[in-house]
Amino acid sequence: MTDTEITTPSDTTADEVDEVVARAARAAAAWKTAALADRAAALDAVADALDAAADALVPIAQRETHLAEARLRGELRRTTFQLRLFGSVVREGAWIGARIDHADPDWPMGAPRPDLRRQLESLGAVLVFAASNFPFAFSVAGGDTASALAAGSAVVVKAHGGHPELSAATTDVVAGGLRSAGAPDGLFQTIYGTDAGVRALRAPEIRAAAFTGSITGGRALFDIATSREVPIPFFGELGSVNPAFVTRSAAEGDAAGIAAGFLASVTGSAGQLCTKPGLLFAPAGSPMIRELEDSGLPDGGPLLNAGIAAGFAASLERVRVHAGVEEVASGSADAGPAPTLLRTTAGAVLADTHALTSEIFGPAALVAEYDDERQLIDVASRIEGQLTATIVGSDDDAIAADLLAALADRAGRVLWNQWPTGVSVTYAQQHGGPYPATTASSSTSVGTAAIERFVRPVAYQNVPDALLPPALQEANPLGIPRLVDGELRG
Amino acid sequence: MTDTEITTPSDTTADEVDEVVARAARAAAAWKTAALADRAAALDAVADALDAAADALVPIAQRETHLAEARLRGELRRTTFQLRLFGSVVREGAWIGARIDHADPDWPMGAPRPDLRRQLESLGAVLVFAASNFPFAFSVAGGDTASALAAGSAVVVKAHGGHPELSAATTDVVAGGLRSAGAPDGLFQTIYGTDAGVRALRAPEIRAAAFTGSITGGRALFDIATSREVPIPFFGELGSVNPAFVTRSAAEGDAAGIAAGFLASVTGSAGQLCTKPGLLFAPAGSPMIRELEDSGLPDGGPLLNAGIAAGFAASLERVRVHAGVEEVASGSADAGPAPTLLRTTAGAVLADTHALTSEIFGPAALVAEYDDERQLIDVASRIEGQLTATIVGSDDDAIAADLLAALADRAGRVLWNQWPTGVSVTYAQQHGGPYPATTASSSTSVGTAAIERFVRPVAYQNVPDALLPPALQEANPLGIPRLVDGELRG
Repeated sequence: MTDTEITTPSDTTADEVDEVVARAARAAAAWKTAALADRAAALDAVADALDAAADALVPIAQRETHLAEARLRGELRRTTFQLRLFGSVVREGAWIGARIDHADPDWPMGAPRPDLRRQLESLGAVLVFAASNFPFAFSVAGGDTASALAAGSAVVVKAHGGHPELSAATTDVVAGGLRSAGAPDGLFQTIYGTDAGVRALRAPEIRAAAFTGSITGGRALFDIATSREVPIPFFGELGSVNPAFVTRSAAEGDAAGIAAGFLASVTGSAGQLCTKPGLLFAPAGSPMIRELEDSGLPDGGPLLNAGIAAGFAASLERVRVHAGVEEVASGSADAGPAPTLLRTTAGAVLADTHALTSEIFGPAALVAEYDDERQLIDVASRIEGQLTATIVGSDDDAIAADLLAALADRAGRVLWNQWPTGVSVTYAQQHGGPYPATTASSSTSVGTAAIERFVRPVAYQNVPDALLPPALQEANPLGIPRLVDGELRG
Repeated sequence: MTDTEITTPSDTTADEVDEVVARAARAAAAWKTAALADRAAALDAVADALDAAADALVPIAQRETHLAEARLRGELRRTTFQLRLFGSVVREGAWIGARIDHADPDWPMGAPRPDLRRQLESLGAVLVFAASNFPFAFSVAGGDTASALAAGSAVVVKAHGGHPELSAATTDVVAGGLRSAGAPDGLFQTIYGTDAGVRALRAPEIRAAAFTGSITGGRALFDIATSREVPIPFFGELGSVNPAFVTRSAAEGDAAGIAAGFLASVTGSAGQLCTKPGLLFAPAGSPMIRELEDSGLPDGGPLLNAGIAAGFAASLERVRVHAGVEEVASGSADAGPAPTLLRTTAGAVLADTHALTSEIFGPAALVAEYDDERQLIDVASRIEGQLTATIVGSDDDAIAADLLAALADRAGRVLWNQWPTGVSVTYAQQHGGPYPATTASSSTSVGTAAIERFVRPVAYQNVPDALLPPALQEANPLGIPRLVDGELRG
């Protein structure tokens, strides 16, 4: 890395895109049937290469994104952890979903059951649209790339324009790691420019796409993906206001602690997180409200780029001028857009739900005062799909069970007395909720289940053992968990 | 049943559709959290009610579809078996995909891991478009309905116009079974008419749709589902030519047996099966070809309805007049469209793949002679997505491994020395392949995995045990398999 000359990459041409996707399709055919151990080793090699390049990559990221060094080093650690975690998932093999039904002449359906064996197999080459706000964890070498490589797919990344030099530098590191592990040529490639991304999305060789970004941009790409002659799955993580609901009893408890936790979650990374809680409901006139107004907001700092700053200003202004909304606190605007707290009522949110539950990407939030806890249920049943929803409550709150059920119907992750930012990469994580939070609510873009996006089931009927994929051979040579004649065998 | 007066239902009005979907949404909210045992018992009750009504239902089906009594009785047995199988799957609980990550302060990501618990939960109310060719197994009480009810969804069925009286009668039986089991009012409803189906598909209360039918009709509905303000998943099973490939060595073996098996699969149920093998590749000049030409085709019989008969005639004619295609055999047309065998060459198929691999729904097939076995790989890599693909071969065929791999990339199910019709309902079944075979190749509409279409994951973070859904409570009160801290616990 240190001796690599860094240049801003130019937009990928149409011809280049066509070559890239053709190469990706060839690599995918080879990678799909590569041994699981080889696939895992390649993910480890990429992680090692990225760790070794940290001192070169982080300064580029700082310069291009204005994020703090500590945050970026932490994010890179998360990114390499994620790659290794997918490596361990690939080795373990449960994700293959192997199912074996032996032939059964007495199958009670009324006809003999043939020998059927089913596993999940890679879709082929996939396209990943990188995000701006996590230049490592949701970008070139992020979770989409890691899970797609783990699934046996070749990856074409459409780099985000917000950090082009980092994208190019990261691409070199990832490609080097894969090369050192003996992965097929063309398994991982990066393209640049909006037109290149759209052309790749329309290419027959591309079998699925993943995206993290705005509702407008994501919906436009979703529409392209689904209107192709051969439609493809589009896993878009679009946006979310991530509402939080403070019950009356909680607001009368540690009001200062709740307010501090909320504001830290709102303003961390300058509010540029997809799980930022942008809307908080608290009892009207409660100590909670006063704490929020009095607690003081931090100084503003530079946002990721000029586009994000303009979008923040515009979306904040739309809510600020809404009838029934007033500004109650703001931080310094000397070094960047001022962190801002707005206030309204639950009644106003119910009266104009779409406008007052729209995401403001950046350091701002809206506090809605409620008179009656039942209003929280009304809000929960009316809001659009969310990545997360948070309850701050007490175990004996009468409303807790109903509110939890209503929120589980609208969000991918429901939290209790914790804040939604800082999405942990784990086995049980779910980062994806009903539209518009995501375009595919049955999927997650964070956590080990993210691998499921890039595979599809294939059943083999009456195929000789020697011709079967290893996961389905009778002797279970991979030693993976399988469903055999309907029973789970660990 | 026997004292029910049978009438042809009239089209459901727009107002009625709105009431139906509103009722379905209310029922879905209750059913989603119903005890698994209650859900399973309801499926059993529906199966029992259908079995008890067989003598009333089958004659209506015979009259409306022209299918034989034995076939229909077998299909009804398959249908009730399917309902009970989903009941057993619901009870067993693995489908919930429960995952528990305990809090871990030392999680190597670089930040503490919170307590996270994830399960699959019903999407809500769903819409099922019934098919014409299986008036029981893919219609009102078919696999889509069974798997959706199992998943905890409310079901609105759009009845197929080909068997309206049977649809109404079946609806009464299903609703009666559910009522006797104490299921919520509105859990299962049927609507009639194309406009009613489209209106329901656009209704905000409908969270997913399933369909079995033609490519044209399915694509039109897919486009509506994905272009909604809130797009919904559309699980469409559209069509497939289901190619079969006879290797040279196989064709030189039991040519008569292969020919007989193929023709039986082509003409069973008058060829009106979505897995009918409509295209067979055999070595040019082999005994196989002569056997096919000489074996004689059965007499034609009435097709399902006038629309199917017209579609059959038109699609058969399109292929028959294609340059390089000739008719080689046909059965009697006295009682219905003549079963027909056409012949062409593998070269012609490669030269105009789309035209010569299009589905002819009905009792016809195209035999393509090849000169070189490698042409089979070329065909396999060029064909559109398929529900099934079949190899008739010998274990030591040099081409077997490559052909199997190429077909696994294009089909949902690959068979070896068996024919694809007669889709068994099992744990490992996969009925769904790349577009246009289906609009969602990651799903199946037959087999126990069909339940996965109607659920989405929800994660609960730091939620008190008493507030968690039973599947995620620490003590595992349902006794289901779960992934705990990354390890499978049976």
